[in-house]
Amino acid sequence: MATTGNSVPKSISILDLIVKKRQGMALTKEEIEYFVQGVVDDAVAKEQLGSMLMATVLKGLDDFETTCLTRAMMNSGEIMRWPESWRGKIVDKHSTGGVGDKISLVLAPILASCGMKVPMVSGRGLGHTGGTLDKLESIPGFSVAINTAAMTRILEDVGCCIVGQTETLVPADKKIYAMRDVTGTVESVGLIAASIISKKAAENLDFLILDVKCGKGSTTGSKEDALVLGTRMVNIANGLGINTIALLTEMNNPIGQAIGNALEVAESLNCLHNKGPSDVMKLVCQLGGQLLYRAGLTQTIEESYDMMEARVRDGAAIDCFRRMLVAQGATEDTAKRLCDPENDIWTILPRAKHMTELKSEKKGFVQEIDSKLCAVASGKLGAGRSKWDDVIKFGVGLMLQVCVGDAVEKGDVWVQIHHDSDDVPAEVVTVLEQALVVKDQPLAETNKSRVIEIIA
Amino acid sequence: MATTGNSVPKSISILDLIVKKRQGMALTKEEIEYFVQGVVDDAVAKEQLGSMLMATVLKGLDDFETTCLTRAMMNSGEIMRWPESWRGKIVDKHSTGGVGDKISLVLAPILASCGMKVPMVSGRGLGHTGGTLDKLESIPGFSVAINTAAMTRILEDVGCCIVGQTETLVPADKKIYAMRDVTGTVESVGLIAASIISKKAAENLDFLILDVKCGKGSTTGSKEDALVLGTRMVNIANGLGINTIALLTEMNNPIGQAIGNALEVAESLNCLHNKGPSDVMKLVCQLGGQLLYRAGLTQTIEESYDMMEARVRDGAAIDCFRRMLVAQGATEDTAKRLCDPENDIWTILPRAKHMTELKSEKKGFVQEIDSKLCAVASGKLGAGRSKWDDVIKFGVGLMLQVCVGDAVEKGDVWVQIHHDSDDVPAEVVTVLEQALVVKDQPLAETNKSRVIEIIA
Repeated sequence: MATTGNSVPKSISILDLIVKKRQGMALTKEEIEYFVQGVVDDAVAKEQLGSMLMATVLKGLDDFETTCLTRAMMNSGEIMRWPESWRGKIVDKHSTGGVGDKISLVLAPILASCGMKVPMVSGRGLGHTGGTLDKLESIPGFSVAINTAAMTRILEDVGCCIVGQTETLVPADKKIYAMRDVTGTVESVGLIAASIISKKAAENLDFLILDVKCGKGSTTGSKEDALVLGTRMVNIANGLGINTIALLTEMNNPIGQAIGNALEVAESLNCLHNKGPSDVMKLVCQLGGQLLYRAGLTQTIEESYDMMEARVRDGAAIDCFRRMLVAQGATEDTAKRLCDPENDIWTILPRAKHMTELKSEKKGFVQEIDSKLCAVASGKLGAGRSKWDDVIKFGVGLMLQVCVGDAVEKGDVWVQIHHDSDDVPAEVVTVLEQALVVKDQPLAETNKSRVIEIIA
Repeated sequence: MATTGNSVPKSISILDLIVKKRQGMALTKEEIEYFVQGVVDDAVAKEQLGSMLMATVLKGLDDFETTCLTRAMMNSGEIMRWPESWRGKIVDKHSTGGVGDKISLVLAPILASCGMKVPMVSGRGLGHTGGTLDKLESIPGFSVAINTAAMTRILEDVGCCIVGQTETLVPADKKIYAMRDVTGTVESVGLIAASIISKKAAENLDFLILDVKCGKGSTTGSKEDALVLGTRMVNIANGLGINTIALLTEMNNPIGQAIGNALEVAESLNCLHNKGPSDVMKLVCQLGGQLLYRAGLTQTIEESYDMMEARVRDGAAIDCFRRMLVAQGATEDTAKRLCDPENDIWTILPRAKHMTELKSEKKGFVQEIDSKLCAVASGKLGAGRSKWDDVIKFGVGLMLQVCVGDAVEKGDVWVQIHHDSDDVPAEVVTVLEQALVVKDQPLAETNKSRVIEIIA
């Protein structure tokens, strides 16, 4: 029996596809499209989706299957359409999730100030990593619920926006993602890659840069695993017509000094005022520089760095950020006061009720600040979620007072704990004491680039 | 933190257990009990059950896990209690499912007529194998919905009953079984063994014999797979205190001549009148003989055969069958007329509207009658279900007119097709023509025992 283009023989059932994957066989493009459509239409029962996801985790998806899955998921909803005049300028960055990772908040307005269009659809935090949307929502009035029409206007006026996944964008991913969370099927290269790239593909980008993290504070784990995931994502995204590269970056130590929602917004503002921690600005430039260079705005990566730093110094970047805040619901007054370096931003941003300092118990050199443990401590203070319905405390978190490589004396304050509870929970102190590693010898190499490898 | 006897640490979640199994680790007794309780209480979401079942199929359950699962499932519902005076006589047989397998209908009354108590909880047919309950329901008035109190009365008066799984018996199995069906997770030694043995254990048996089939018409497949399943079931059941052995039996050719519900009831009646096909009676004796011998009723297996044949010849076995029919809802008149060899039973049993004969296209010796193909043909006539809500046609089916080893002439009728549709569907004829294998040479060995191995 011959089958036409996109159809699956009538006799094929969802059950057949589950069994086929269970047996370790590759599914065809048509079969994957049929399954994804079934998920969207609720023709796939929940128990069947759970079963298929587990079979997929244990038997894997090859490159072609992952591409088919990504495309089918992308096609399950709206694909954004942009004015023709923007072609070649529509860019975005995605990170696999880190600790203290406020890169998006700094990078998006800088790219916009360089003339790019950045339709950044971002996520919330779950587990130990923070979420860009949660951070932005600590700003009074800021809304991440922006539809495509409004996004187009904001991109036209401002050049960047940072929004949540809309109802119409990649509905298949919404359903599958919620299921993976409860069925123990998060850890799958194919499923992670398809989830990330399907959303970026629905943004209809020209250029995409991926920040694939490895090490203690990453969700990915080892360098080898991160390399596999990064390579898979680059291949798929390029296959879908988005010019994509990935930076494999180290996430053992937190990015910058602030961990926690409002604290990270404050640090991002410092960065946009050219007063931020050097490691944050370095990573922002490394990621953004690739995009500007590849989009043809500059002749070399170094030239890209210069352009980005110039836009920070001349105030164009912070101005984009201010206008983005207003476009996404903050009042003119809030945005102005938040972006004015002369102002006390803590009259606007939520602040924790108490601050407690933790001191180094040892003299020596800071060898490591374990980012995973910092994230766990911050989470226990209320900065993150362990379940989707947990309520975030925007003001709480950590402010590191030392950097890796620094010399410390015994009794030096190394971290400020911002907390809402009267006392710092004992377990938070215990976790943090394990996070700081001080040794007698200075570090051989300090101020090292976080970028381990470029996957192109 | 120390944990007490049966408890699972509070922090352990269903998700943790799924991930543990996904990683290939063995679950503890407490974890399995916690999961099964969660299934019964609906604390395990459907997608989580689907995911756990797939992880179980792909990562396996070891002997100890299977025993724990079986016990937890058994304890999820009622465990039958029998009068103390029956101790040592409570026996049952379970088959993994075959084609033309009416053994239960013949064996239960024979065992009862030998003084045993047989509380047989049986199943329905799905896929290519027939179900004992479906066969019995072709008898007007016969009910398989019998609760434990009524079972006790019937066992007291008659000695045997054949009933369906009640609501209170092993509810965890009911839920898990329904899920396995749609999630592609039927083929798992551990899950199959736990499902079968938990129900038999809830019957609170002294002795159990398992008929584990292999070959074309079996659900198990190869001899090796059947041996693994049989060994696992024997180990678990013995561990639960039921004296159990298994016979590994060949299921390449149908058992007896009748395939189809009412047709198999008719053949079973012939067996109980000592006029049935010799292969059916042989298997009945081989299975029942083991039980009588192990229960201490006889000194040798051969003595058991003699006892069973005597109870058939003296009419005690058919009398038990007749009284079981009445006890389970048939009228005295129906039961009497059905069990009277002088009567035309087709005035009582439903009969297909039409009968068509199929002839051998070749002269030679019957080498094989493929039982799987016979079952498929019978299913297409309406004798079985492909989905749980399919309605069965009780009268349809096949009557083989030749046995393996028989000499046939070209043009000899080899099978009668009993059908309700005006014409025999072409696909039924096609399938059946493939089922009969006739060769020039006679078979080296005929009338071979179906028993390949005894697993004790």
